[in-house]
Parts: sequence; structure tokens; C-alpha cells
Amino acid sequence: MSDDYTPTRDDKFSFGLWTVGWQGTDVFGPASRDLLDPVEATYRLAELGAAAVTFHDDDLLPDEAQREATLDRFRTALDETGLIVEMVTTNTFSDPVFKEGAITANNREVRRYALAKVLRNIDLAASLGAKTFVMWGGREGAEHGASKNVGAAMDRFRDALDTVCGYVLEQGYDMRFALEPKPNEPRGDILLPSIGHALALISELEHPELVGLNPEVGHEEMAGLNFAHGIAQALWHGKLFHIDLNGQHGPRFDQDLRFGAGNLRGAFWTVDAMLGAGTERRYDGYVHFDYKPPRAEAMDGVWESARGCMRNYLILRERVQAFRADPDVAAAVEAAGVMELEQPTLAPGESLHDVRNASYDLAGLRSRSVAMEALDQLAMEHLLGVR
Amino acid sequence: MSDDYTPTRDDKFSFGLWTVGWQGTDVFGPASRDLLDPVEATYRLAELGAAAVTFHDDDLLPDEAQREATLDRFRTALDETGLIVEMVTTNTFSDPVFKEGAITANNREVRRYALAKVLRNIDLAASLGAKTFVMWGGREGAEHGASKNVGAAMDRFRDALDTVCGYVLEQGYDMRFALEPKPNEPRGDILLPSIGHALALISELEHPELVGLNPEVGHEEMAGLNFAHGIAQALWHGKLFHIDLNGQHGPRFDQDLRFGAGNLRGAFWTVDAMLGAGTERRYDGYVHFDYKPPRAEAMDGVWESARGCMRNYLILRERVQAFRADPDVAAAVEAAGVMELEQPTLAPGESLHDVRNASYDLAGLRSRSVAMEALDQLAMEHLLGVR
Amino acid sequence: MSDDYTPTRDDKFSFGLWTVGWQGTDVFGPASRDLLDPVEATYRLAELGAAAVTFHDDDLLPDEAQREATLDRFRTALDETGLIVEMVTTNTFSDPVFKEGAITANNREVRRYALAKVLRNIDLAASLGAKTFVMWGGREGAEHGASKNVGAAMDRFRDALDTVCGYVLEQGYDMRFALEPKPNEPRGDILLPSIGHALALISELEHPELVGLNPEVGHEEMAGLNFAHGIAQALWHGKLFHIDLNGQHGPRFDQDLRFGAGNLRGAFWTVDAMLGAGTERRYDGYVHFDYKPPRAEAMDGVWESARGCMRNYLILRERVQAFRADPDVAAAVEAAGVMELEQPTLAPGESLHDVRNASYDLAGLRSRSVAMEALDQLAMEHLLGVR
Amino acid sequence: MSDDYTPTRDDKFSFGLWTVGWQGTDVFGPASRDLLDPVEATYRLAELGAAAVTFHDDDLLPDEAQREATLDRFRTALDETGLIVEMVTTNTFSDPVFKEGAITANNREVRRYALAKVLRNIDLAASLGAKTFVMWGGREGAEHGASKNVGAAMDRFRDALDTVCGYVLEQGYDMRFALEPKPNEPRGDILLPSIGHALALISELEHPELVGLNPEVGHEEMAGLNFAHGIAQALWHGKLFHIDLNGQHGPRFDQDLRFGAGNLRGAFWTVDAMLGAGTERRYDGYVHFDYKPPRAEAMDGVWESARGCMRNYLILRERVQAFRADPDVAAAVEAAGVMELEQPTLAPGESLHDVRNASYDLAGLRSRSVAMEALDQLAMEHLLGVR
Repeated sequence: MSDDYTPTRDDKFSFGLWTVGWQGTDVFGPASRDLLDPVEATYRLAELGAAAVTFHDDDLLPDEAQREATLDRFRTALDETGLIVEMVTTNTFSDPVFKEGAITANNREVRRYALAKVLRNIDLAASLGAKTFVMWGGREGAEHGASKNVGAAMDRFRDALDTVCGYVLEQGYDMRFALEPKPNEPRGDILLPSIGHALALISELEHPELVGLNPEVGHEEMAGLNFAHGIAQALWHGKLFHIDLNGQHGPRFDQDLRFGAGNLRGAFWTVDAMLGAGTERRYDGYVHFDYKPPRAEAMDGVWESARGCMRNYLILRERVQAFRADPDVAAAVEAAGVMELEQPTLAPGESLHDVRNASYDLAGLRSRSVAMEALDQLAMEHLLGVR
Repeated sequence: MSDDYTPTRDDKFSFGLWTVGWQGTDVFGPASRDLLDPVEATYRLAELGAAAVTFHDDDLLPDEAQREATLDRFRTALDETGLIVEMVTTNTFSDPVFKEGAITANNREVRRYALAKVLRNIDLAASLGAKTFVMWGGREGAEHGASKNVGAAMDRFRDALDTVCGYVLEQGYDMRFALEPKPNEPRGDILLPSIGHALALISELEHPELVGLNPEVGHEEMAGLNFAHGIAQALWHGKLFHIDLNGQHGPRFDQDLRFGAGNLRGAFWTVDAMLGAGTERRYDGYVHFDYKPPRAEAMDGVWESARGCMRNYLILRERVQAFRADPDVAAAVEAAGVMELEQPTLAPGESLHDVRNASYDLAGLRSRSVAMEALDQLAMEHLLGVR
Repeated sequence: MSDDYTPTRDDKFSFGLWTVGWQGTDVFGPASRDLLDPVEATYRLAELGAAAVTFHDDDLLPDEAQREATLDRFRTALDETGLIVEMVTTNTFSDPVFKEGAITANNREVRRYALAKVLRNIDLAASLGAKTFVMWGGREGAEHGASKNVGAAMDRFRDALDTVCGYVLEQGYDMRFALEPKPNEPRGDILLPSIGHALALISELEHPELVGLNPEVGHEEMAGLNFAHGIAQALWHGKLFHIDLNGQHGPRFDQDLRFGAGNLRGAFWTVDAMLGAGTERRYDGYVHFDYKPPRAEAMDGVWESARGCMRNYLILRERVQAFRADPDVAAAVEAAGVMELEQPTLAPGESLHDVRNASYDLAGLRSRSVAMEALDQLAMEHLLGVR
Repeated sequence: MSDDYTPTRDDKFSFGLWTVGWQGTDVFGPASRDLLDPVEATYRLAELGAAAVTFHDDDLLPDEAQREATLDRFRTALDETGLIVEMVTTNTFSDPVFKEGAITANNREVRRYALAKVLRNIDLAASLGAKTFVMWGGREGAEHGASKNVGAAMDRFRDALDTVCGYVLEQGYDMRFALEPKPNEPRGDILLPSIGHALALISELEHPELVGLNPEVGHEEMAGLNFAHGIAQALWHGKLFHIDLNGQHGPRFDQDLRFGAGNLRGAFWTVDAMLGAGTERRYDGYVHFDYKPPRAEAMDGVWESARGCMRNYLILRERVQAFRADPDVAAAVEAAGVMELEQPTLAPGESLHDVRNASYDLAGLRSRSVAMEALDQLAMEHLLGVR
């Protein structure tokens, strides 16, 4: 199908190799799909319209003996397809060595090994031209109250980030780090559980300018948090360095549905927030999908779901743009006073005296129309394509 | 009953006047209890063993005409009981004037009125000697994606905090601000939904040293977040200025159960975190209860629930102290390597070269004992009082 | 606006008078809107396109002294508008008399009073021609483990249903009862928390044919349950007597958003399930909205939200019908084997011997395509109106 | 440690072999522990104090070629230890053949294969003397709205249960079936998601007397449902045939913590409900643990967690018994009117006329004390062992 929702390189779509490569292993059963060669996946994603791929070290290079050979094949694939590697991340959660943590493992040897694995992978990322290096601490957490010294863990997070920032500066790499928060799973509780907690950590670093976020739709929604609000706050801090798009049905296991599935209205507002939500604070990085094709699907379903991620983004982007361009929406935004919030509460130089001694028409303010349902219904109708 | 769990002033227990004063009005029904005179409540809380009270302006002084008379009676009650006012907060959520927000209302007049209300209340707080001023933005949020410009709202939060910090500095008040995060209810989504998001905002302020947090057990647990982890991170940032203790059963409506009810194991780890969790980072402020006696209860149940909050804290404190003092626990903490996390991953001055080129006994690290279940079972048995 | 989404009487839309009549009182603040006269609301809903209204006794007739006068005015409104009363329900949750339950209150006097209130309201319902009588036990539950004897409560539920069924049979009323499950709020836990629990109770009644369900979208979604699955099971049991449509964002407080808001994909599947999901098991009753216009809205927003409920239903109905009529969808349904599930696993008269001794192509079955992502993407594109 | 909390055979503790045998494979990483021989596990569980073991066919007998040899070794272990097999269940969820369902797979061949697997396992169960046969349909569900015809799935569930009930009657096996509900994971939504939904299905069977429930603590709590309430309703229906004890922290992934961990207050009320909650409706089957030792633990932690399950049950049972035996509690139960709920609302033969025409002291009923907080605080203090 070649319609308006066919992706092009300009759409800057990016996929993790581990997404289409997920074999379906879960707690309740083994793999349901054969191993997908990551280089083959790269060609296939290029055909589908992606502009970039990303990977964990272990996705691309599970076998040390094949490392150079696979890298050669991978570089050839990049050359032949024109795809780039826009982001790289390190798997510090699968190997049982990391079973109680990696960067914040109680065991210092494990922490050292994790750091070594990250550093080696930073070099690889730099050699492939990746500008973003994501850190998801999937096992950095606890099931037990006393088993993790949270303050010490925060120290170790800080030290590790200071170390890797120092390293890329020293090496002259053009690379920034992006932390990926998640509230739980596979650990009972994970440290840095939300966008907010990770932003707070960044404020304590030596090189905060080098560290931002890679928020994931489903991770925030697992905590019942509004993802669009979350990335809007991250943008406000100047910290939305990367993004992971997928779908989720609220607090439950990490579903990693294709983008659009799960909370569709949330997906609309997510795209709106990425495009600035009518303001100048927008995301201009790669549109990265981090999802899992359901275990029940065979390979046809894998590629169908990858296609769906991009199509759904393009449909939603079109709808968001139409929403923001609609004069009726502009009038409704005005009626709801949305842009009035950009006016400072105090005028420049105004003294508090004026505010305190003003008389307020409380009765009028209490009964005023806020006209937000009307605005939201316009958004609904743009989303559904009836306007 | 006068046993070891009878509170004294040294326990620094504090209650919001709105807790025992809640009349039971909810979405599904009107008040089930008569109005409780806040001054009478102060005497009664003193008898029960509290050391301090706190209030919203509208709890204590709902009627402008009675303001001075009530304040006189209240000051007398403080004098006669020896109670102090340790914290004051402003009601910027009940009056329909604040129906779409207060500090971040789209409507600028509302924001100005909210600021005026806060400033007046800061003066009152200062006059009563309160050292902590809590800000909970209960209506600062949205049900609708387009109705709130999140970036502008963050600007207004920042401005308002800069303004009030400037004001207390100018006035020479010995007072700090504490933000209270909440994910939702009464708004569909509230801005600054978690401890992390509020910490992040603070890092952008003019006077970050004057602003910290007042986290509430139930608010974090409504998002499925680990409260003990949250306050441990806040302590790490030096930002646990105040605390709201209560109980909750995970993601659902805001239950505001008495402390101990709801997630009891969480309450144990909360007290442990307040006491430092075996480290020097501890909370030394008032132990403040912010809960609601269930609507079904008559006044006997109201006082019973207040009594229960304090008793449960004292029981849990005893259990936590015994846990931390137990040599078997010390051995189990050692076996689990908990304190090893305090050792930096790199030795002072160590180069990354050493870490990268070390050889790691991966097989041994994979199969190592982490001994965390054993430690957690010790904690369980201390909590249950069988050790 | 008069487009294809303008409701007519044939759409059988019905509204609770308490929906548009909600004044905005919640736990955190008093009413934000003036009292709406229920008779006036009836006229207004007729203008908007509703075909029926429903009410709790206390919505329509809060004042005993005005009972007959209000009923006269209400009957006139029904006559003049052509609206009917399709359902009536009893408020057994607002009056503090019901603070610990009504039908299952520990206090027997309260139970007797609740029964009397219900019986009187059944007579009123019959006199107004209502064929469905809903029972929502909002306060039938507990915050405390020992305070409610669940087995005895089940006995009292059963007895009360047997009593009211006996009463309508004796009176010759053409009326059926519909239980409305809810997991929590305003009680910590409510008995009969889900569609399933209520269905189970019905199987123990004297007149199970007279009792079915009135499931509400948000109530099931507060427990993270799939509403379309739930009503499909209720239809399978022949028990979907009535329905409450609204919107919710998963496990949190009861949001009662207008239909379509919240989980929009869930709303699509809800309408699909109501229309039979491609089978003969469908719902043919009134399309009833039970929602709350957000507290922030003034009356313009109240009516806008009521209008939105109906428009969204009509848009979704159109999309569901197009989805089910699309030959590509039929092919995808076939490819996913959906209708194969209607074939019994054993052929008629087939012995188990055949099943046990058959040889199965396990390798083929493991790697088979299930083609469900492709089907779901077609549904997504119908929902979004791009097909 | 040999104290009052050391299990004996009379405690009827039972463990699934898959619990201690879980190797730690999850979505994010491979096995962290070596394979545990199930026969060795049987000896070890006997030493720890268990009275029985249970298994899925594939736990005990993963290798067809070793089937008879393993069964011989297993029977020897049972003889030598005195353990019995009290329950058997079938794995119809791990093999990718079941990737979109087993009993309710769209694919009829899969359904036939699943039935064959179940029947063969029933024979094995009968040969080992198991009286309970559990059916957990882990993959019976969907991620997609249109991919599963729920009504047809209910037909297939019903047929399959009718078939297996007919089979055990025909064979003369002394065996009952127990359905295990779960809301989600590994499927997006699972059919029969709660205790209630499964109870409802049973009411439609040919041999309802042969089918009951095997509810699991964590599964209900993943939906935010009160487990003690759920099993109390199951007991009321006469359907609590078996139970799965473990721990969970509310709506999130399936944690399968050891019993007591997670919601400890809920565990207290669970044990209370099992023991009858002060009534005659009690559970008298095996006390079965279905949990997973955290992936981080080595084998020492596996056995520690198994030991903890039993110890925690014994501690809680002691506390529940003390609670129910305490005269102060009896007085508090009386004050809260708990037993008054056992009195029918209508006296035998009483006409509705009396109820309708009685006068009710509404003011008194509104302001009455319900004394539930006081009762709950007594429960808390028994749980914590301070009474």
C-alpha cells in the first residue's frame, strides 16, 4: 500500500534490532520464533521505510568469536541501505551476572564488569556514529526493603554517569547519554522509576548537559502516569534527548505493544507533545520504536507490527497537524484560555502589593466557563478523522 | 492503655486539623459527621499525645468574620497544651475559583488570587512560628490533552516558587517550602505527579535551598511507586523537608487510611527509611499524619483512628530499631553485600584501563548467592514480632 | 452541527439525570455548579437527541414535600418530549444512614430501611413504565478485614434479590433487575466487585431469569479488566440487561469521563461487542450514559459533554459497522481463524479415543501464522477512519 | 530453627514442583539457576516440612523418553518421604503450539491436542492419587479485540469442562477440577479474569459439582481485588476447592513473591478467611504455595523462600487464631455489629408491609458508631504481636 502513510527517510523512524528480533521467550514459555539475523533485520527495516536502527551490544553481537565478521556485514548493510545507527545501548540486564543490578549491584566486581561493558560499547557506538547512548537499568532495583541501600545506589549512578561523561569528553566523542526510567519489571521496584526521578538525578551530575532522558510510553503508563505530560516536563528541562514509542494498557506487565495500540488517545497527545503542542518546545530527534511483536505471531506478524508502528505514527501526526491548524481549534484553545498561561502571573516589576490588595470577582471566576470539554471533543474528532 | 506505644511529645507527632476534622463528604454522599471545631480538635490531639498541629488556612479560619477571634482561641489552645504549629499549608483546591488550577490556572486572575491567598497565609504561618510551608497543587492538572500547556505551567510553578522564596527572604522568615506531589485525583492527571517530578522542578529554581518535598505515602503508592525508595532518593538530594504518613491499597482512589493500614510492609520500610535505613541519611522532622477517618465512623472512630496512627508508628519504630540492632540482621546485611554498595566502583584515582582490562569470574558471579530472601525474612519476622 | 453523527430517537440514547445534574462536589471541594432542575434537564436532553432518561429516586425527588408536584412536572416533560423512563435506580449510598452499607449493612434497621426505600422506588419505576431496575451497592463493602462477614453479606444480597423479584412477580410488574458491579470507591473494597462476581451471585437466586447486569465501562477498567470481554461473557450468560457507558484511564479514582474519552480503543471494542462482534449475541437495550461532566466545566461544558457522549457513540458505531462490513476484514478474520473457534473441539459423537490417538503436526502448529496483528491494524485503521 | 513455626505434616503444606524449580528465565534474561531435578526437589521439600507436592506434566516429565524412569524415581520419593500428590495440573501454556490459546485456541487442532494432553495427565493424576486437577488457561486470551470470539471461547471452555468431567465420571476417578483465574500476563487480557468470572462459568456446566476454583492471591491482587473477599465469596458458593498462596504488590507484573511478602495485611485476612473468619464456612484443603523465588537468588535463596512461605503461614495462623480468641475482639466484633448481618433482614414470614410502614430513626442511624476502626486496630495489633 502506498498512501500518505508510507514512511520515508525524512520521517526519521528508528527501530531497535531487539524489537523485531524478540523471539517470544517469557516467564511462561520458551521462544516461539527462530532467531532473526540482525543484519537481515536491518535490510528488512530499510525496505519498510525506517531511517535508522539501534541495538544493545548483545543483540548485534551475541557471539564474541563472530564480532568482527558480524560488524563487517552490518556496516555493509548500513552502507547498502543508507540506514544509520542513531543510538546504541548496553545490555546490562540479561546475563545472570547482573541478576541483582549492574551499575548499582551490591557486588563491586559486577559493577566494574558492567562499567567495562558499557565503555567498550561506547567505543563501538562512537565508531558507528551514534550520537545517543541509552542507559536502561533493568535490574537496578530490589524486591526487598533492606537489600538495596538507595542512597548508595544513587551515589553509584551519579559516579557512573560522571565517569562515562568524562570518558566521552576525553575521547572527543559527539555523544550524549539518555536515561530510561521504568517503575518495575523485571525487578519488584526499579530505581529511577519515572521521568521525574531520572531528571532529578541529572541535576546532581558533573556534566548535566551531557545527560538527558529516553522515556518510554509504556514505562510511564505502567505507573498510571500521563506520558505526554511527562515528556512535556522533560522538554521544559531541555532533557528529551530520545524517545521510545510503544503501547500499554495501564498498570500491568510491560506489554510493549506496537505504537498506537493500548492507549490511543495518549498516543495522539504524545505525538502532539513531540511536535510542540502548539509551542516552540518540540522534539527533533529520531522517532524510535521499542516494542515487542506479540509472542503468538509468526514472522509475518512481526513485520506487520513494525509496519503498523510507522503507519500509526504517520496517521496520528497528520491528525495532530490538522488539529493544530484548524481555526475552530484555535478558537477553542482561546476560549479555554490555554495560551493565557504563558502570561506571567506578575507583570514585569510588579510588586506583590498589587496582587495582595487587588479585589477579585470571585463569583464570576467560580462560575466561569473553562470550555475544555469542547476543546477535547474537537481533538477527539480530529483523531477519529471526522473533521 | 499506657504501654510502650503511648506517644509523648518527644515523638514529634503532628496532625493536620483537616484529618480528624474531615466530615466525610465525598463524590457519592454528603457529610456524615458534624463540624469539629478546630480549636477543640487541638486540645483533643494534645491529650492523645500529639506534639504539633498543622492546617490549611480554610480549616482553621473558614469564616473571615471570625478570623481574629478564632486565632485568639487557637493561640490560647497552643499555649495551654504546649502544642506548636510546625507546618501550615494553603487550600488552593476547594473553592470552585480554583476548579482548573490555582498557581497554574489558565486564568491569570485566578493565579493572582491564589498567590495572594498563599502570601497572606505565609504571614500567618510565620506569625505562628511554622517553619515549613507545604504546597499541594490539588487542582493543578487536566483531564484533557490540549487544555493545559505543560511547559507554561512549569514556568508558572517556577515563578511562583521564586516569588514566595523571595518573599520569605525579604521578610526574614525562617521558613522553607515543601512541595507535595500526587499523580491524580481530583484532576485526571496532576502536574508534578511524583517525588521525582517535584525534585526535578526544584533544580530549576532561584533558591533551591528553600524548597524541598512533603511526600505522602498514599500519593506515591497510587502510582504503584515504592514510597521508601522515593523518600530515600529525596533524602539523597537533601530534600525530605516534611512527610505525610497514611495508608493506601495501591492504584485506586486516594484512600487516606490511618498509618499502618494498607501496605503494612511498606510502612515498615518507610519508618526504616525515615530512621536512615542503617545509614546517616535520616529524616529529623515532625512525623506528620495526613489521613482521613473513614466516612462510616462516628467521632469515636475518628479519635480511635488518630490514636492508631501514632500507635502503629511507635510499634513499627520499635520493630525497625530491633531489626537494625539484631546481630543476625547485621550478618545477613553483610551476606547480601548491602554495604558493599557504599564502596565506589572505581578506587580513588583508578583509571578506566584497569576496569576494562580486568578479568572477571563471570561464572562465579552468575551463580553467587545474593542472600536477599534470607534478609527479607528476618525483616518480616521482626515486623511480626517473632524475633 | 447536523451531520451523520446527530442522534435520533432510534439510537435509543439514555442519560441518568444525575449525570448532567452532578454539581461537582468531591472529596476536595464543594459544588462548582448550581442545582439543575431535573425536569429542565429532561427537556434539554430531549433537545440534544436522547430517547430516554433514568434516575435515582433522590435525583428526581430530593424533597418529599415536593414529590407529587415534581412528578407531575416530570410526567408532563415526558409527554411533551416523547422521552421515556427506561430505567430507575435507588440511591442507597448518599444518605449517611447507609454509611457502612444498605442491603448488606451490619445494622438490620438500615437494611430494612434500604429495602423499604427500594420497594417504594420499584412502585414508582413501574408507574413510570421503566422495564429495568438497576441496583448499585456503592457502600456495600468495607475498609477493614473483620468488619464485614462476607458470607452473611452474600446471604443478604441473595435474600434481598429474592424478595424484590418476588415482589415484582406478585405485583405483575414487567420489570427486570440489573446489578452494577464496582471494585472500590467509595468503599475500600466493594462486594460484587466485577461482572463475574455479580453473574455468580445470580446463579444462586430463586428467580435468576429476572436478574442480570448493568456493567459500567469505568468500573471494570478500574480493575484493569477488559470491558468488551466482560460484556461478551455477560451476553453469553444471557445477562446483559443494561449498560453504563463512560470513560476511564485504568486503575485510579472513578473518573466517569464522557464516552470515548479515556480508553478509546476499548470504546471501539465495546461498541463492537454491543453490536455482536460479528455474531448473533448482541445487546438490544438502551445505550445509557453514566458519566460526570468534569467539575471545572460550567453548564456549557455539561451540555457539550452530553452531546459528545452521543456523537462519539455514533462515530464509533459507524466505524465498527464499516470494520465488520469490510471484505479485507472478513479475509483477515478468516486468516486469524477467529470463526474456527465456533467449531466444537470434538465432532458430534466423536470419542475421546480419536483425540488422544491422533498425531499432531506440532512443528507446523508452533510456527503457524496467527495473523492477529494484521487484523488488529485493520481495526485501528477503521477506527481512525483511514480505510 | 525449631520453634512454634516449624511445619509438620498436619499443616498440610503443599508446593508446586515448578516453584522451587523455576530457573529464573524471564522476558529480559535467561535462566539464572541450574535445572533442579524434580525428584530431588521432592525430597528437599519433605525435609522442609511439606506434606504434599503438585506439578504440571512438563515439570515432572519434560522428556518423554525418561517418563517411566522418572515416574519410578518419583514414586519412590513419595514412598520414602511419605509425601502425597494432592493436585496435578497441565502445562497448556509454554509450548509455542499454545501461543494463542489451548482449550480456546482458534485453531481446532491445537484445541484437540490440548485436550489430549489434559486427558493423559488426568490419568497420570488419578494413578498418583491426586484428588484435585487444576486448570490454568494462561494463554486463553488476546491482545487484540477482534482476534478472539469470546462467546465461542466460553462455549469451548464449557464443552471442555463437560468433557473432562464426563471422563472422570466414566473412569470412576475420585477427582475434582479447579479453575485458576488470572486477569492478564502472559496474554494482554486472559478470559475468566477473576474468581467471579470463573464461578459464573461453573454455573453453566453439566456437572457443576465437579468444578470449583483454585484462586491465587497475586492474580486477584493484580486486578486490585480483595483476595480474602474473593475466597469468601467462593466459599459461599461451595467452590473453594484449592488455593494458591503467594505475594504481590498490586497491579503490576505477576510477582509470585513468597507468601507474606507483598500485601501482608491481605495475607492475614486471607488466612482468616481460610479459617472461616469466625464462621463455619472454612477451607479444609491443602495449603498450597505457588510462588517464584526471585531470579537473583541462588539455590540457598530458593530453599530459604520455601521455608519462609511456611513460616509466614504459621505465624499468621497463630495470629489469626489469637485474634479470633481474644475477648476484646469478640466485644469489638459485637460493637461493630458484624454478626448482626447473619440475621435475615426480614423475620421468617414477615410481610413487606411491616418493613415499608415502619418508622426509622434516621437521625440516630446516621450518627451511630460503627466502631470498625477500633476493631481493625485490634486486628493490626494481633498481626504485629503486641497483644
